[in-house]
Amino acid sequence: MTTITPTSANDAPLTPLRFLQRSAEVFPQKEAIVYGERRWTYAQFAAEAEELARAIRARIEPGDRVVVLAPNIPEMLIAHFAVPLAGGVLVALNSRLSQREIHHVLAHCGARLLFVDSELTGMVGDAFAATDTLAAVIEIADPEFARTAVPVGPSHESYTVFIESGQPLHGAVAEPVRWTIDDERTVISINYTSGTTGTPKGVMYTHRGAYLNALGEVFHNSFGHDSVYLWTLPMFHCNGWCTPWAVTAASSTHVPIRTVRPEAVWEAIDRLGITNLCGAPTVCSMIANADEAHPVDRPLRITTAGAPPSPTVIEQLERLGITVVHVYGLTEVYGPFTICEYQSEWDLLSAAERAEKVSRQGVAMIQAEAPRVVDADLIDGDLVDVPRDGLTIGEIVLRGNNVMAGYFNDPSATAEAFRGGWFHTGDLAVMHPDGYVEIKDRAKDIIISGGENISTIEVENALVSHPAVLDAAVVGTPHPKWGERPKAYIVLREGHEASAEQILAHTRLMIAGFKVPDFVIFVNDLPRTATGKIMKVTLRVGHGEVVVPANPTPAIALVVVAVPVAAA
Amino acid sequence: MTTITPTSANDAPLTPLRFLQRSAEVFPQKEAIVYGERRWTYAQFAAEAEELARAIRARIEPGDRVVVLAPNIPEMLIAHFAVPLAGGVLVALNSRLSQREIHHVLAHCGARLLFVDSELTGMVGDAFAATDTLAAVIEIADPEFARTAVPVGPSHESYTVFIESGQPLHGAVAEPVRWTIDDERTVISINYTSGTTGTPKGVMYTHRGAYLNALGEVFHNSFGHDSVYLWTLPMFHCNGWCTPWAVTAASSTHVPIRTVRPEAVWEAIDRLGITNLCGAPTVCSMIANADEAHPVDRPLRITTAGAPPSPTVIEQLERLGITVVHVYGLTEVYGPFTICEYQSEWDLLSAAERAEKVSRQGVAMIQAEAPRVVDADLIDGDLVDVPRDGLTIGEIVLRGNNVMAGYFNDPSATAEAFRGGWFHTGDLAVMHPDGYVEIKDRAKDIIISGGENISTIEVENALVSHPAVLDAAVVGTPHPKWGERPKAYIVLREGHEASAEQILAHTRLMIAGFKVPDFVIFVNDLPRTATGKIMKVTLRVGHGEVVVPANPTPAIALVVVAVPVAAA
Repeated sequence: MTTITPTSANDAPLTPLRFLQRSAEVFPQKEAIVYGERRWTYAQFAAEAEELARAIRARIEPGDRVVVLAPNIPEMLIAHFAVPLAGGVLVALNSRLSQREIHHVLAHCGARLLFVDSELTGMVGDAFAATDTLAAVIEIADPEFARTAVPVGPSHESYTVFIESGQPLHGAVAEPVRWTIDDERTVISINYTSGTTGTPKGVMYTHRGAYLNALGEVFHNSFGHDSVYLWTLPMFHCNGWCTPWAVTAASSTHVPIRTVRPEAVWEAIDRLGITNLCGAPTVCSMIANADEAHPVDRPLRITTAGAPPSPTVIEQLERLGITVVHVYGLTEVYGPFTICEYQSEWDLLSAAERAEKVSRQGVAMIQAEAPRVVDADLIDGDLVDVPRDGLTIGEIVLRGNNVMAGYFNDPSATAEAFRGGWFHTGDLAVMHPDGYVEIKDRAKDIIISGGENISTIEVENALVSHPAVLDAAVVGTPHPKWGERPKAYIVLREGHEASAEQILAHTRLMIAGFKVPDFVIFVNDLPRTATGKIMKVTLRVGHGEVVVPANPTPAIALVVVAVPVAAA
Repeated sequence: MTTITPTSANDAPLTPLRFLQRSAEVFPQKEAIVYGERRWTYAQFAAEAEELARAIRARIEPGDRVVVLAPNIPEMLIAHFAVPLAGGVLVALNSRLSQREIHHVLAHCGARLLFVDSELTGMVGDAFAATDTLAAVIEIADPEFARTAVPVGPSHESYTVFIESGQPLHGAVAEPVRWTIDDERTVISINYTSGTTGTPKGVMYTHRGAYLNALGEVFHNSFGHDSVYLWTLPMFHCNGWCTPWAVTAASSTHVPIRTVRPEAVWEAIDRLGITNLCGAPTVCSMIANADEAHPVDRPLRITTAGAPPSPTVIEQLERLGITVVHVYGLTEVYGPFTICEYQSEWDLLSAAERAEKVSRQGVAMIQAEAPRVVDADLIDGDLVDVPRDGLTIGEIVLRGNNVMAGYFNDPSATAEAFRGGWFHTGDLAVMHPDGYVEIKDRAKDIIISGGENISTIEVENALVSHPAVLDAAVVGTPHPKWGERPKAYIVLREGHEASAEQILAHTRLMIAGFKVPDFVIFVNDLPRTATGKIMKVTLRVGHGEVVVPANPTPAIALVVVAVPVAAA
């Protein structure tokens, strides 16, 4: 077998840095970033990344972690290139973490630099108290954010001053920045898990994995020169599914937005010609239910994940002319890993049957290996697939170039996640005869009632199909006879009314009686992580009482009316 | 710097085999290949590749070379997957080689198996005489080819019988085929150069390079599920620019055709909804000038390379609603490496100015590193770029993942090609201020007259812009005073007439007087290699006499009228 030893002539380590370098070479004058009144061409985007990289490089050692805590502002996007250009590892922090969690992450990753948006400085507190590795906190004063940037801590440098330190001195030639890397398996970023299931873990991405995932995103989103991408998906979430690199690879236009509000999203769709956006089902629901919602006059594709979109919302969006693509993944696999590829024969199905098909998690993306659904137990040390019957529940396991390098500084958690040579997602699913994976529940959220599995998603979809129901979450509650029984948290649509009895009667028409919840609790809103996952741990705490989320950041006041209902 | 040691969980060696495996998993029932009345779904395509791989595997050792000599028939396409699936290295042979050249390649690569289309068996002669490594010759009897397949040699096995040997015995389970590889830098194919400049050399491609080039093709051709690709480009040419793998990656539909005739091409465009095809400028010209030519009613994109397309042909095709994309590459770089990316500001230019822009060789493709144009001489061992002035001629050098692994069994030619750490193309070009490369000539074809370089391409474009001229080639001829002077070979359009004086008067309006040819020779056709390059070596032999090409295969009868014209 002839195998080649690569040389510099015929082997370039894969890195998404190349994408910005190329777009700046090829389309220097093309609009790369549109943010409020500010504009960056690709030449300016690359120049600012270089400048920031030079400033960072002067303050870190290669491989040092550089943390950014900011909304979806251009500086966050630019950091996705500038930090690795400087030889650093990017840690984009979830802006919904508590101060305690932020300090945990700063200490755990051994942060050298922390960039923080003015609005969020209060969340950080005294970052220097968190870790002695920290050399500086740099505050980004976003002009789109009205409040004047006031340094809050003792060493909050200004971003403007900091980045100027990367400019060459008057008359001098700028120190060159290397857009290439020596080893494509170098870590490019660490993404901390949202921590719904415990202490956040630091998921390491490599340049190679980010490059390949970005090309996969380009293909599945059909990103091209004319695409205009709206940043409704937080960049701190799996590096925005590698989309900072993907959109740049295709020389498309980025449209970051500071806060995701329905009027801002619809204004961007109408005024800037948005062609693509991504987001959790809450984003889909928000767009579909906005006052501004109207049929779109050019193709718009929403890629959604985090939880299966409800068939009801999919239908609402499709009526507006918006295509919904469902993908599935998690932090550990660079964001999306599977996609619910549309099959042309689904055109012949009823709307309801089609909605069922497209809400599945689907099949491997172009750059990914095929997902498997396996038994909980190894047999002779091997993972064993469940039958492809659409019924037998097992765990989704994944492998390939878009599986994380490992958890940072956590070899035992890494080994546990990789047992049997595959990454264990913790997501319970079935494998359909057509090879499509369908999640039945997060392992920890499944309800087992009388020995029968109840998929909370199935129950939630049934609840949401009631015309008065905007949102619903179902969790298990202990039961002396059945082990567990479902209870439902329901958000009603504004201006709509329905009783628990009415909603449950509707639900009973759609799913088996034993799956119909015993309790209905009406609330104003559901507690969610920044990534759109419902914090079911929080919901389980309450039992009809006023529920105060353990993590105060999302600050959701649950106005609760307990409505016990006779067991089915 | 944190660098990761990959494991099977988070690292899958890149191979284009994955693309067929995935398309068969995800779109098993989708039409993969349409060939005359025959059809393959993706499931059938993968199954036949597996079957053929099993049959081949039984007859070779890993890494053995498997040669295929065939037109663009489905078996050639399937071999692009079956041979590497079997652990072999594919050698797709140019069907315009002479028997001597075929025997040279068989011996040079140490062929183990030779597959040959019935129509071409006569070309091969006694293949066993060429090399003692050869174990079998397998004859493919294409039903689309009317002639009955008659075994010509002593051991010409039938393809049908051969592939059946890959089927499991009745009742037995098929031996599994591995769709994965151990090392992505394993050689997947060897492509012999067309040999215009000497003995054919065997260019080695790796699985990694083929995978990345295929993804680049997917992006730049916008291949998607709905694309229908017409095989006008020979698959033996740089493995069809890696398009067998690219079209399969996107789960598009392949439409192979046995011979590229205008009526067959237009029938496929009209009846099968072709969206993409590739080919040399001769293919563009054939499509534009066909009797069947008419405006297309859906998007059709032609990607062309091999020589810069003439502005006249580009304009003709654009009037039919056909988009022409110009790319540049060579066998040593997996086919296309640069692309003339369209800039929206070119919309504002005149048609002539725009044609000039789009006929340039352009910029790096998405997966490629930036091309350079360098001085002939190294300075202190380093390559030195020519100024970006659009004037200074240098040599194009390339590097990155889409540069060949090397020449098979030819370390000295490999070292020579890679001097200075870059692959030397031998193509002479200028670098424009906008970073676009423009070829001025093949190093060996440039005409130096009175110390001034004359680009033969520039002269050819000027000649072809005359309404009566269908095709033109310009070569240098020795001159006592000026060193060299240009002479032109001209093919007139059917039904058109023009004298040499008329054509040269037209040319003189377009280019500097010293570039206008001294001789015009009217011919019926130009001798071209299978890849569309004009065989200028052949043209230089003649001087107004009847010219017989050195290589008899293309068998072009040049009917010549010598018209000496006074030097400018």
